[in-house]
Amino acid sequence: MIKELKSRTISVCLSPAMLPLHKLDGKIAVIIDIFRASSSICYGIHNKAKAIIPVSTIEECLSHKNEEYLLAAERDGCVVEGFDFGNSPFSYTTEKIDGKTIVLTTTNGTRSIRLSMDAKEVVLGSFLNLTALCNWLTKQSESVVLVCAGWKDNFCLEDTLFAGAVVEKLQHDYEIHDDGAVASLDLYQLAKSDLGGYLKKSSHRERLKKLNIEKDVDFCLKIDLIDTIPILKDGKLIKLMDEESSLNGSNDNLNIDLESKLG
Amino acid sequence: MIKELKSRTISVCLSPAMLPLHKLDGKIAVIIDIFRASSSICYGIHNKAKAIIPVSTIEECLSHKNEEYLLAAERDGCVVEGFDFGNSPFSYTTEKIDGKTIVLTTTNGTRSIRLSMDAKEVVLGSFLNLTALCNWLTKQSESVVLVCAGWKDNFCLEDTLFAGAVVEKLQHDYEIHDDGAVASLDLYQLAKSDLGGYLKKSSHRERLKKLNIEKDVDFCLKIDLIDTIPILKDGKLIKLMDEESSLNGSNDNLNIDLESKLG
Repeated sequence: MIKELKSRTISVCLSPAMLPLHKLDGKIAVIIDIFRASSSICYGIHNKAKAIIPVSTIEECLSHKNEEYLLAAERDGCVVEGFDFGNSPFSYTTEKIDGKTIVLTTTNGTRSIRLSMDAKEVVLGSFLNLTALCNWLTKQSESVVLVCAGWKDNFCLEDTLFAGAVVEKLQHDYEIHDDGAVASLDLYQLAKSDLGGYLKKSSHRERLKKLNIEKDVDFCLKIDLIDTIPILKDGKLIKLMDEESSLNGSNDNLNIDLESKLG
Repeated sequence: MIKELKSRTISVCLSPAMLPLHKLDGKIAVIIDIFRASSSICYGIHNKAKAIIPVSTIEECLSHKNEEYLLAAERDGCVVEGFDFGNSPFSYTTEKIDGKTIVLTTTNGTRSIRLSMDAKEVVLGSFLNLTALCNWLTKQSESVVLVCAGWKDNFCLEDTLFAGAVVEKLQHDYEIHDDGAVASLDLYQLAKSDLGGYLKKSSHRERLKKLNIEKDVDFCLKIDLIDTIPILKDGKLIKLMDEESSLNGSNDNLNIDLESKLG
């Protein structure tokens, strides 16, 4: 088994602008948009949203009105007027979304999901579910492409650092396939002792600070709060059911704990 | 003077695929293709080539035949059949190119030059002319975009490291403008004590090794061998004449020295 898997590769696409260079066919694409779409989607699926439907445009999102869906739309870091909420993780609590289907469009994250549809599987990654994601990936036989959503097609540090965290965990089981993976790993190892401190240098952190969502940022940098992996099936993000993962485990009451801690 | 210049920014475009996101208008674009186009062009202009004309396609290059030009073409690291040479720095010695005009097309570098034509000035950077380039940049009032040519639009380490070297030298005179500049600087500071050793991890180094051009690679990582800056004027790369730089200085015999040392 190990021998067969040696040919698995891991590569990092540092911006959706470079996605056409990555052949996703037959591979697993991990979509990364740390601030905040992939973090909030992971958290929302963990908190028992039935499904989250990623769409590219606000119009597409609006077209689902009156279908008993929650409609969520974020542009440039803000909730779009007239929508139920945006992509703050604190909008994705059990209280608000248990059993609901959410239609979501964001500036970067949902676009990257749509652009990665050629992959064999599309899953979402965030610091919140880092170890669960990596444990699941190592059990698969496919090569992995880590897709950083960035900011409007530009490179951003927080997505790159998360990609580096995944490469660090998988480096002994996968062949590191491109310079993006090397750079991500080295940057993560430089930053990991104080992710928040390191990201004070990032342009996006500055942008989010202006939006007064520092609390969201701190939340999105918490490691291994949950063990849920969202996976794309028939255009919907749902909870990956993996008998070998510890789903429905000891984190069931996490939402309430976190709310009281961070509220 | 200093006060006025405080608004200068420095940013790093990690791949030509992200060039549309960088507004080059009114700025200085520094084109970086360490292995090997920008290194060889810097070396060639230093070694008294009259001009180097960058063109995008092999056909465009061929169309200049019979015009007393030298025709140079590289694709996938090799000299294209029927051309005088490719982009090895050892083809750009005084003996071969003194007084000559070269028409050059390469896989990545010349394309990035053509894509950066919106900039106020386009200059070329390499480890060979690092300090001369930075000294000249600090005397200009414009913002700077460092354009990494990459490999077929993908991110590559060696161009990023050079961008980081420039950011390191300019960071106190410019505002660091994007996450690309932060990442480049950190990666350079991690690698600078042994650039060659660090780049053994890079995918491109592996590719070049297969092409048996290790000698070229070692040469392209030498720092401050020359003080010449190629600048684009009317579609031709020529020697930047800057009265404050030390052009025509003590490096006049460098070509011969290097040839004997490295030959």
